[in-house]
Amino acid sequence: MLLWTASLRPRKLARPLFLVPALFGERMRIEVICTGDEVLSGKIVNSNFSHISQRLEDVGLSVRWGTTVGDDRESLLLAFRLAAGRADAVIVNGGLGPTVDDLSQEVAAKAAGVDLVPNEEWLARMEEFFRRRNRVMSPNNRKQAMLPSSAEILDNPIGTACGFALDIGGARFFFTPGVPRELYRMLDEQVIPRLLGRAGAPAVIYLKRFHTYGLGESHVDSLLTGVEELAPDGSVKLGFRTHYPQIETKLTVRGRDMDEAKRKLEPVETEVRRRLGNFVVAEDGESLEGVVLAALRQCRGSLALAETYTGGQIAARLAPLPGAEEVFRRALVSRQPAELARALGLDGEFGEITRETAERVAEAARLRAGASHALAVLIEIDDGPDRIDFGGNVHLAIAAEGRGASRRSRILGGREWVRLGAVELGLDCLRRFLLGLPVSERVDFERRETGNEGHRAAR
Amino acid sequence: MLLWTASLRPRKLARPLFLVPALFGERMRIEVICTGDEVLSGKIVNSNFSHISQRLEDVGLSVRWGTTVGDDRESLLLAFRLAAGRADAVIVNGGLGPTVDDLSQEVAAKAAGVDLVPNEEWLARMEEFFRRRNRVMSPNNRKQAMLPSSAEILDNPIGTACGFALDIGGARFFFTPGVPRELYRMLDEQVIPRLLGRAGAPAVIYLKRFHTYGLGESHVDSLLTGVEELAPDGSVKLGFRTHYPQIETKLTVRGRDMDEAKRKLEPVETEVRRRLGNFVVAEDGESLEGVVLAALRQCRGSLALAETYTGGQIAARLAPLPGAEEVFRRALVSRQPAELARALGLDGEFGEITRETAERVAEAARLRAGASHALAVLIEIDDGPDRIDFGGNVHLAIAAEGRGASRRSRILGGREWVRLGAVELGLDCLRRFLLGLPVSERVDFERRETGNEGHRAAR
Repeated sequence: MLLWTASLRPRKLARPLFLVPALFGERMRIEVICTGDEVLSGKIVNSNFSHISQRLEDVGLSVRWGTTVGDDRESLLLAFRLAAGRADAVIVNGGLGPTVDDLSQEVAAKAAGVDLVPNEEWLARMEEFFRRRNRVMSPNNRKQAMLPSSAEILDNPIGTACGFALDIGGARFFFTPGVPRELYRMLDEQVIPRLLGRAGAPAVIYLKRFHTYGLGESHVDSLLTGVEELAPDGSVKLGFRTHYPQIETKLTVRGRDMDEAKRKLEPVETEVRRRLGNFVVAEDGESLEGVVLAALRQCRGSLALAETYTGGQIAARLAPLPGAEEVFRRALVSRQPAELARALGLDGEFGEITRETAERVAEAARLRAGASHALAVLIEIDDGPDRIDFGGNVHLAIAAEGRGASRRSRILGGREWVRLGAVELGLDCLRRFLLGLPVSERVDFERRETGNEGHRAAR
Repeated sequence: MLLWTASLRPRKLARPLFLVPALFGERMRIEVICTGDEVLSGKIVNSNFSHISQRLEDVGLSVRWGTTVGDDRESLLLAFRLAAGRADAVIVNGGLGPTVDDLSQEVAAKAAGVDLVPNEEWLARMEEFFRRRNRVMSPNNRKQAMLPSSAEILDNPIGTACGFALDIGGARFFFTPGVPRELYRMLDEQVIPRLLGRAGAPAVIYLKRFHTYGLGESHVDSLLTGVEELAPDGSVKLGFRTHYPQIETKLTVRGRDMDEAKRKLEPVETEVRRRLGNFVVAEDGESLEGVVLAALRQCRGSLALAETYTGGQIAARLAPLPGAEEVFRRALVSRQPAELARALGLDGEFGEITRETAERVAEAARLRAGASHALAVLIEIDDGPDRIDFGGNVHLAIAAEGRGASRRSRILGGREWVRLGAVELGLDCLRRFLLGLPVSERVDFERRETGNEGHRAAR
């Protein structure tokens, strides 16, 4: 993903383009102040903070200190003054709304020692905003155009909260809205380019991402030891983010221009792809379920699902995707394998669940739906209380015309953990089958058992 | 839910019992410091902070200030000193682990001006912990028993991280582990009782919760205006928490003893239940899906589902519940209504989707599965890009032996919002049907349309 080149202006993308410092790796002292009673009281989980931090990390910047305060003047003023005394740059989130408890502009003006004045430009923008939506602007909204006299406007093309920047003490403050989609866009288009501009001369930066399933974070970390050294002069930085059961591996590279950045990245990217091998389920903005869907579309295939304890969660990952209308044929969900059997017209009851049971269910589901492929995930869940060593046996099978695959796996970690793990395992095995990769390669999240078909991991 | 009485000791509950101040409503100045590079860099979203804040709110305490810092000595020391100068009590989360970047004990000792000394009691506890799990304690773990000499131990019965409390400046500091389940338990069993003990003489406190679907937060707020005044002397406090599409309404009451607390609560509780009426989907620890399951078990019923755009999410709410094995018969999921029709043996294709289509699908699903009840949720999703005014038409039907119900609803707010809303609407209509309540009462999240069967809200 290209983050910035001089020839491109920031535009709307899932992960947009940025101005970026040549001083990549050097650290500005950046703080984040999150405001609002709802965040402070825990009514809402503060995901804006982690979003800001991660986006800065993506471009080689780091947050040094985070502060959370409520909607009161005394706390806000103290928070602004403390940050002004410690930081080079401060991102303030929230408090730009139209109601009386939105205090950011007022307290910013006080902390900067300037007046709060009406901004005619923003007032006109808001009037236009409401006019285009055939709505009348409420008098409250005028408050949103009151800005400290020294403020520089940070554009918010999708809302009425006016972002702004100004100096308080020795620090540059950036005020952003609390509404996530407004924050995300202002951060990418307005705040980060300015931060990077302050950090030094611009260059090109590029972010490459790999999504893996089946390896724990410490395992990925050890597999990739030393990989950064394949690029010259520390120009590639390696990072991880875990969203169980997937791990995201990030490579951030800088260069004088895009050619140089890609040239520096190339040996590292190739080596990461080689070392992580079959465990890479998707790259960049792709997802595991998106890759499965694309592979099915590629072969003009269609899919039927049969689920037990995963209870519809595999279907819920695939069915809503754009383009799934033509590929996703049907899913059958039941808690009882015998009920699945009845629904599929299979004779007799299933006593013990085995790989063969899963194979029969998959083939019956495929035939019933007239689909080219089917995935069956049958789970025997342990009895007893839900504890960390509570587990389940996962029997999964894939059926296709004239061929198939199946595997058995034991997953531990509590009821919800087993369910999440089985959903991912099912989708990943389907991906592997469709791409011609080994379906039974061992994953870190399963318990090794002697009876597990003798398959071994490639590493 | 009883939070505390003098005759009961704290014990393990989903929401346990507490010592509680007579000074309910008065505010100690409490701060929370979250530590760790993973939280500061946004690699993990800081849900521990919101958990701590919400639990304190539940017992009438409030967090005044939140700080997030990384694993470095300088920042930790500064954060401790700043909090010590402002607060009465400080909860520190994280940094008690066995690795070199876990610095909380060391920096706490420095900030308090005391030595770091081995604690034999905790060392013995850890050795016992590992012995019982047939594991050998690593030398790293010895570090977890090094505590400031003035520290009071806060028990952690489920981990090796030793919680502790000590004074720094004028504030009492409580150090807690970063692992959520260890934090939750230590907070409830060790920290909150001590905070409440410091806040004043103990009394009884009780938390009553209502979960509603179909009313927005501002609507719930306005419906409940003045309800607190039905209790004497401000002894009942009203609060809300939104988890779209549900709203949680909380009533916290204090009294000298349990009888008094319940007596004070009773008129408020009754009035809240009356005003929120049919929109209360569950109370206290219950859930909407749990209520649906219980109602089906009560009538010895069983359930079949047919879903389109919700893609298995309704099944995913019901199927994994303990006890669902006997009730949840099967779910059929497809993106194409025509495919649902084929799977259910219905003649012909569905051109236009109508309430009648949904009714036929529900009845066919019920008969196929041999279930007493069936729910069908069919959605026509708008064409075009995913925007805030993107919507879908939801057609839902419930079939039972000899009777049924159906409704049509239009939901706006983007693809994911429509899906979440339709899942909740489907479950709630099923609840209403099973409990004999009106299925078509208007909800705030739907767009009113003239063709919507003429049903009107009761309010």
